[in-house]
Amino acid sequence: MSARVEGFDFDGYLASRRSWVEEALERLCSSRPKRVPSRLWSAMVYSLTAGGKRLRPVLCLMAAEAFGLEGQRVMPLALAFEMIHTASLIHDDLPCMDDDDLRRGKPTNHVVFGEAMALLAGDALLALAFESAIEGLMANHFSGELISLAVMSLAKATGPSGICGGQSMDMGFEDMGQLGPDRRVMEVARSKTGVLIASSLEGGAIMAGADEDALSNVRGYGMALGKAFQVADDILDVTGKVEEIGKSVGKDQAQGKVTFVAVHGLQGAREILEETSGEAKEWAAKLPRPDMFCAMVDKLMRRTS
Amino acid sequence: MSARVEGFDFDGYLASRRSWVEEALERLCSSRPKRVPSRLWSAMVYSLTAGGKRLRPVLCLMAAEAFGLEGQRVMPLALAFEMIHTASLIHDDLPCMDDDDLRRGKPTNHVVFGEAMALLAGDALLALAFESAIEGLMANHFSGELISLAVMSLAKATGPSGICGGQSMDMGFEDMGQLGPDRRVMEVARSKTGVLIASSLEGGAIMAGADEDALSNVRGYGMALGKAFQVADDILDVTGKVEEIGKSVGKDQAQGKVTFVAVHGLQGAREILEETSGEAKEWAAKLPRPDMFCAMVDKLMRRTS
Repeated sequence: MSARVEGFDFDGYLASRRSWVEEALERLCSSRPKRVPSRLWSAMVYSLTAGGKRLRPVLCLMAAEAFGLEGQRVMPLALAFEMIHTASLIHDDLPCMDDDDLRRGKPTNHVVFGEAMALLAGDALLALAFESAIEGLMANHFSGELISLAVMSLAKATGPSGICGGQSMDMGFEDMGQLGPDRRVMEVARSKTGVLIASSLEGGAIMAGADEDALSNVRGYGMALGKAFQVADDILDVTGKVEEIGKSVGKDQAQGKVTFVAVHGLQGAREILEETSGEAKEWAAKLPRPDMFCAMVDKLMRRTS
Repeated sequence: MSARVEGFDFDGYLASRRSWVEEALERLCSSRPKRVPSRLWSAMVYSLTAGGKRLRPVLCLMAAEAFGLEGQRVMPLALAFEMIHTASLIHDDLPCMDDDDLRRGKPTNHVVFGEAMALLAGDALLALAFESAIEGLMANHFSGELISLAVMSLAKATGPSGICGGQSMDMGFEDMGQLGPDRRVMEVARSKTGVLIASSLEGGAIMAGADEDALSNVRGYGMALGKAFQVADDILDVTGKVEEIGKSVGKDQAQGKVTFVAVHGLQGAREILEETSGEAKEWAAKLPRPDMFCAMVDKLMRRTS
């Protein structure tokens, strides 16, 4: 069933922007930059082209377009979000972390290239994200001020108050005893998933020249969408099939991770998905093109039904 | 013996700038940023405050000052270079990499915090470098254009054509069969050490508004200085005492790494140190304050005698 909102073919739009991202990734990966050693490059390209929904770069394009910018102009920034996301997956999969050997239906990076190379490939993708975002946005004639703001947001979402902090909590390294399990699982979702998703939308809006009020609404939408996405992911971890979700099923459960399903039960998690999705739609109403942003929420919810 | 060049007390200057850096690092580390989990922050702070020469941030300040800028203004960028350097050391020391348990005279990060946390602390420092550099430079009223250029240089030096690429070669992951050992060791030194040192000088000069010709000379000096530094380091690995160099002696040798000493012998390495130092001084002559930049070369050479 195609999602048509007020005559707008959202599924078609999504497919088109996803193919833009895939094409841009292919262009990037097909020519190894000068001075980059070939095996390291292979390891980076392996994970970057291993598929996935390309959610973050698509959201970056969406936000830029909703605020009136030609989407292709922010592609260097959009790809940077995918690079950061990919780097975090490579490192999360390492034996000393979640020790996963399957990701997006393929052997994980360290299974193919070894632990040390996977570590380096993650580091290299992390740094390349910043390098290529700045270089590409400068080439596309954006002002240094806008570039600085968007790249700072990306860095913040990546670092200790974002993904890295979330992973440290998710691994059980942090003393969160003062928080109940319901607050803990929400805090992990916020920093591990929400912040980067919010930042990808914010980055697109920044480059389109959105003002501070608008950016605040974009972030609100992004944080709610990101949490909803994490709840949906936790539900899929127990209800999905391996060929559908492309990674080991029941893994979170087996590792005793604090997921929404573990804390609230399957039915409880579905209710939280309803709540966070509703919250995201309230924020969407404050954005330009609310139809598009609402359709994205619906799309995400349908994954779990 | 104090190094006085034309009446300029270089040792005093160096000590002063090093203490600036230490003070700024202490300020940074003493207040955990909002939303950063405490154990992750402890792991980051542990390695960031574990001592070291603070060569890269000092070079960043030096270049800024030589080109007429008040040094403290570029401190956020200077600290970013130290964060990147520290992140690379934490990851290099991991068991899957060089498996080192001693660094700067203290147990390495993973020995104290475990492998997974050390991995995360490195990632977090990497991202924090970009975040705090942009945030701090914006707060110091630099233009977005200059910030973008300096941060792009930092990212390039960190990524696959810089440190990460160098480490991949150093680990023996890359097929460098077409290059003789002398070219290989130089290529590793260039990307693993030279590029970040050059970038730290370039970053300071960029923020001071140096023009493209001047930046090219700064990079030339930095690359030569970086190579000389690596040669000196290799020499110290075999001639130094553990209490002097703060890490395991003879480790490179024991691991069969392609060092300047392994390839050229101790005497040969000393000759290459003379050559690269001479090269660095030739570049120094083209910079403002050549006395200061030459004194830095001499300082570095004295480490090995």
